[in-house]
Amino acid sequence: MSSLLKEIRRNPLLWLLVFVPVVLVAEQLELESHTLLFVLSVLAIVPLAGLLSHATESVAAKTGDTVGGLLNATLGNLTELVIALAALRAGQYTLVKASIAGAIVTNSLFMLGASFLLGGLRYHTQEFNRVGARFQAGLLFLATVALLIPSAVAEVDTSTGTKLTATLSLGLSVLLIGAYALGLVFSLKTHRELFAAVGGEASHEDVLPIGVAIGTLAVVTVLVALVSEVFVASVQIAAESFGMSPAFVGFIVVAIVGAAAEMTSAFSAARKNRLDMSVGIALGSASQIALFVAPVLVLLSYVMGPAPMDLQFWPGAVLMVLIATLTAALVTSSGKSAWFVGVLVLTVYAIFALTLYLLPPLTS
Amino acid sequence: MSSLLKEIRRNPLLWLLVFVPVVLVAEQLELESHTLLFVLSVLAIVPLAGLLSHATESVAAKTGDTVGGLLNATLGNLTELVIALAALRAGQYTLVKASIAGAIVTNSLFMLGASFLLGGLRYHTQEFNRVGARFQAGLLFLATVALLIPSAVAEVDTSTGTKLTATLSLGLSVLLIGAYALGLVFSLKTHRELFAAVGGEASHEDVLPIGVAIGTLAVVTVLVALVSEVFVASVQIAAESFGMSPAFVGFIVVAIVGAAAEMTSAFSAARKNRLDMSVGIALGSASQIALFVAPVLVLLSYVMGPAPMDLQFWPGAVLMVLIATLTAALVTSSGKSAWFVGVLVLTVYAIFALTLYLLPPLTS
Amino acid sequence: MSSLLKEIRRNPLLWLLVFVPVVLVAEQLELESHTLLFVLSVLAIVPLAGLLSHATESVAAKTGDTVGGLLNATLGNLTELVIALAALRAGQYTLVKASIAGAIVTNSLFMLGASFLLGGLRYHTQEFNRVGARFQAGLLFLATVALLIPSAVAEVDTSTGTKLTATLSLGLSVLLIGAYALGLVFSLKTHRELFAAVGGEASHEDVLPIGVAIGTLAVVTVLVALVSEVFVASVQIAAESFGMSPAFVGFIVVAIVGAAAEMTSAFSAARKNRLDMSVGIALGSASQIALFVAPVLVLLSYVMGPAPMDLQFWPGAVLMVLIATLTAALVTSSGKSAWFVGVLVLTVYAIFALTLYLLPPLTS
Repeated sequence: MSSLLKEIRRNPLLWLLVFVPVVLVAEQLELESHTLLFVLSVLAIVPLAGLLSHATESVAAKTGDTVGGLLNATLGNLTELVIALAALRAGQYTLVKASIAGAIVTNSLFMLGASFLLGGLRYHTQEFNRVGARFQAGLLFLATVALLIPSAVAEVDTSTGTKLTATLSLGLSVLLIGAYALGLVFSLKTHRELFAAVGGEASHEDVLPIGVAIGTLAVVTVLVALVSEVFVASVQIAAESFGMSPAFVGFIVVAIVGAAAEMTSAFSAARKNRLDMSVGIALGSASQIALFVAPVLVLLSYVMGPAPMDLQFWPGAVLMVLIATLTAALVTSSGKSAWFVGVLVLTVYAIFALTLYLLPPLTS
Repeated sequence: MSSLLKEIRRNPLLWLLVFVPVVLVAEQLELESHTLLFVLSVLAIVPLAGLLSHATESVAAKTGDTVGGLLNATLGNLTELVIALAALRAGQYTLVKASIAGAIVTNSLFMLGASFLLGGLRYHTQEFNRVGARFQAGLLFLATVALLIPSAVAEVDTSTGTKLTATLSLGLSVLLIGAYALGLVFSLKTHRELFAAVGGEASHEDVLPIGVAIGTLAVVTVLVALVSEVFVASVQIAAESFGMSPAFVGFIVVAIVGAAAEMTSAFSAARKNRLDMSVGIALGSASQIALFVAPVLVLLSYVMGPAPMDLQFWPGAVLMVLIATLTAALVTSSGKSAWFVGVLVLTVYAIFALTLYLLPPLTS
Repeated sequence: MSSLLKEIRRNPLLWLLVFVPVVLVAEQLELESHTLLFVLSVLAIVPLAGLLSHATESVAAKTGDTVGGLLNATLGNLTELVIALAALRAGQYTLVKASIAGAIVTNSLFMLGASFLLGGLRYHTQEFNRVGARFQAGLLFLATVALLIPSAVAEVDTSTGTKLTATLSLGLSVLLIGAYALGLVFSLKTHRELFAAVGGEASHEDVLPIGVAIGTLAVVTVLVALVSEVFVASVQIAAESFGMSPAFVGFIVVAIVGAAAEMTSAFSAARKNRLDMSVGIALGSASQIALFVAPVLVLLSYVMGPAPMDLQFWPGAVLMVLIATLTAALVTSSGKSAWFVGVLVLTVYAIFALTLYLLPPLTS
């Protein structure tokens, strides 16, 4: 417990934890101001995501490389999953999909680009393990194909479209989870030596004791779930009062809030010239959301949602995921980086953000 | 003749040749069961394709590198060409186009991916000549552009579309055949040393004598043509009774039947760590169909078909060819492979197969 | 002045300067023949563009690397800019956009491909600095994304589309100019050593004295502007009488006329085995038009045009720019070239040219 308190004292971000009780009390008081609830829930989710990520890494560090890798690979985006589940249960499928696509785009463009830029401002050129980047880019490409196909098919045929898309999405989800599982066997088991640099540098000195870590994991997940309810209920109305389009909210705001903790790690690694780790976090997180979180949400929608969710995304979102995947594949293929690579990637992200900001509300 | 019999004894696949007379007799008897005719014709085409491929290679081996290379480059996909011609004469243009697109996709995804997987299950990592892969991927990319353009133009303008598409397809066919011919000059003549590894390993020990080989070539081509008539006449109705969509039949079934012989060679080479040869067969076959077989069919449609055929494909097919080309280019660019690369490529193929299987019948 | 005359005597292309007074007089006489005016204006623009390019390089050579690089980067496509401004002032936005897209495609396919082919016909294989090619391809990719997005958004929503597209185009223009400016800082200042080979070889021996160069720059720009007026006014009608579609004129004819001077330099460098310089001119020119000329035209349209111009292009043009960018990225990624690479790239260009030639007139 004292190690947890030490962690909190050390990391100013965690001081925001004070907003967790505040937002939960505010919700009980049935405040009318959605804007206030939204701001409070964002301020509460960010430190919770940080704690969750730290606890996952601590458990992973104690359980050895393979089990630890598996844990990171399944719980690494727990925050995104819990927020999306809250939106799923509320039947807000447009928000769920926007947050999935947005998380892929934000991780593979904003997190990657800002890491390149921040690292490049300190070091003239930087190098990283391109085998790892290639592997993650390959997984991302696969997920992009799986998102492209239902959208393309839906265009072809509108009459039998709905039922077809549902069956297709179910099958694609199983294929994606299968490919993700085999990818874990490849990277953690049969060919782990290829990914050595990334794993080796990821070890932290200040891990939590295993009991504290598991306890933190359980308690914080419940807290994230509770705060996510408030967040999901308030985000759309609050966004409108800020003049943002719903697409912008799902794609940019939710994605950045969900990934805030990982961004802190990725950026700090880039500033320490450990770009392997930054690229690993950014692309690993993107491919995990695309091949694990998204299909799991489709499967869970049959149990928890008001209706089955499919993998058919808004064509604009599919285009953005496609461009993000291509960009990530192109800029990581050389294994080298300089500050302008970061500028290029961030400008692609800025083009998306600007477009989404100006976009009028869509109906689906 | 005895060498032919020895070959038949050595290769169990050729025992299926017994189905050739069976299917031809069955057709004469005017059997009502299309399903039976379909199964018999598939069983007859597979060994014929194997013989055809073996005879072509034997002639090629006897006539020296350049002429032999030319023969392989023009007759290497004779089975696909003969099947497509049967469909062309029957006016089944949708089937012709589906089988062209399907052959490109099946060769560049299924044959390539399965070679990577089968080789990777035996060897930790494998290497191959990436200049050859790059060359074939470049040709495939060119063909993809030629397929994209008429489809994009047809969307723009529907009134004058038909005539425009016909003229355009004719022009594009000439351009593609020209590029293919120059590619042969490049790979067989001016820069053959860059492709050395592929050609060097392709030499077989057990070639047929030249007379037997040419005789086999002639006789087997006629037999393939006869059986293809049965195949084309029965495939659609049989497929429906198996519950398959016409798109699935053209794309997957016809393509796999047509390429069965080459697949045996590609897979066996991969298991012997001669991945150069596997990649060469898979991508070489795909680019040959795209740049030679498809345009030749367009030109022949003016002579043999009920009406001119164009290069305007169903948008979903164009998308799949585009993704297959991109996938092949990305996974071969490093010149290295491991089993998971095969899984990635095969999963892309599985996504296509699943989508086509679920697709309702299209009208054109 | 004598150095200018020496230059004119040395370079037979400049003898065409005689057509400058001819075309201006012909216009004053209010000739009825648009075809004649068109041919005369083309013959006059080509040498003027050559002089302009030579004068810019001379000023650049005198002012040191950084300022010189800046000058080349802003005035390098002055001819294209002046022609486009003439079309802009005439309200011919379709022609402006076609000439922008056409210039990108012509530079990155025709100029690049012909350089590869011409160089490859003399040398077995050639090498070039792939860092420079990568940088330019990255910039081009960014511009392609910026062109894709407004077209995709416009499809989504047609009611609020116009206003949205105008605002979006303005924002994207600012982003592109910003990225271009940072790219100059990167290539001319912080990481100039990476681009050394290109810059080093670009130095000419026969530069004009600074006074003559600046004078030439000023006078020739005015002359180009005057002749461009005639060119823009006559090109459409003349094209029709030649049987060319407006899309073909804007994309191919205007683009080749505008880039004629740079092509001479790129081709002659390729024949001297200085492929670094050819690739630099071709891709540098393409990215300059995409990230500097196009956005500047959008901004200037608010001041000089009858109405604001947006960045929403005809979908076929966007597709062609996308394919051209991908092609350039793929063929330059290895840093090596042989004649067939040129054939591949030129065939892609031929596919575009053929399609545009056959295309019926579009309304927008």
